[in-house]
Amino acid sequence: MRFVAEPIARLIEEFNKLPGIGPKSAQRLTYHLLRNSDEEARALAEAIIVLKEKIKLCSLCFNNTDGDTCPVCQDAERDHSKICVVERPSDILPLEHTRKYNGVYHVLHGTINPAQGIGPEELKIKDLLARLQDGSVTEVIIATNPNVESETMAMYLQRIIAPLGIRVTRLARGLPFGAELEYADDLTLGQALENRQEF
Amino acid sequence: MRFVAEPIARLIEEFNKLPGIGPKSAQRLTYHLLRNSDEEARALAEAIIVLKEKIKLCSLCFNNTDGDTCPVCQDAERDHSKICVVERPSDILPLEHTRKYNGVYHVLHGTINPAQGIGPEELKIKDLLARLQDGSVTEVIIATNPNVESETMAMYLQRIIAPLGIRVTRLARGLPFGAELEYADDLTLGQALENRQEF
Repeated sequence: MRFVAEPIARLIEEFNKLPGIGPKSAQRLTYHLLRNSDEEARALAEAIIVLKEKIKLCSLCFNNTDGDTCPVCQDAERDHSKICVVERPSDILPLEHTRKYNGVYHVLHGTINPAQGIGPEELKIKDLLARLQDGSVTEVIIATNPNVESETMAMYLQRIIAPLGIRVTRLARGLPFGAELEYADDLTLGQALENRQEF
Repeated sequence: MRFVAEPIARLIEEFNKLPGIGPKSAQRLTYHLLRNSDEEARALAEAIIVLKEKIKLCSLCFNNTDGDTCPVCQDAERDHSKICVVERPSDILPLEHTRKYNGVYHVLHGTINPAQGIGPEELKIKDLLARLQDGSVTEVIIATNPNVESETMAMYLQRIIAPLGIRVTRLARGLPFGAELEYADDLTLGQALENRQEF
């Protein structure tokens, strides 16, 4: 793009590398920052730098945090006898937004995938088992993604945790709110039928 | 969001301020940067800082540039006898992408809007007239947006430039490519009829 100044082309290119941001959005964002105040642009740039400098993993649950433990683990009002197991730190946000969960979390940082050489050792599974040793945890909720690899891992976790006498549950499968039966896929509709609930 | 670390909440908030980026996209971008390399995040932050530090206005056409004049004005291979008048620097990019224009530009930096107290003096109109004085410019193409304020300004520009003996044209009005007659608005279809072209 030799018709735009290099600093503009460069920022468009950087924005364009981000997920969900195409060339048009990247242009729009760049020109937005150009038009707006220096303060707004600086605040964004600094927030990016601070994020990468400050964020590490919680020593208990491996969620992202800027302290030794994360805000959820630090919260004494939460129910520490329930652990919700997720694949990635970003999975915690949507669960919190439901306002239906008051327990704590454990982040595995991936899913078992033999094809990619990711076994249980590569994930925070040993650390999860360590947290279950003292008998204070009564339920583990497996909140992994509904796909083949994660399903297999969920089964594996269930098989190693259940013998400890701890209740193991998983997120319900069924029709998402707003779905239309006519367009539902076979697997989802099949699971909705199998797991049909009383009114 | 007291359940996420402050640096994460802060960057989500900053991304969320940008146009076209809602809360979900802001989360996605933040976690993307968190997962990826420090280098990627730093490159983005630095590109933002450099943009704001380096970019000023071209002394000839008022396009954004990091030099005294912009890459278009500097380009000796372009036809400097044609000036395309646009409202904002960001309007140049889509025009360049068409590869149908080889002239230079003039950026007005806004549109006349009496309701908002923006008169001709607030825009780079005097500077445009100054560029037309030496007789080297033979055509001015008005490429303002197709809306009421900009139309009024386009008429105004035509009225003051035409007496200088310079050809004044504007972007064609008509049906956009891919449009369906059935859903076209009255004004667009009316203009497409009025401006009908020979095959």
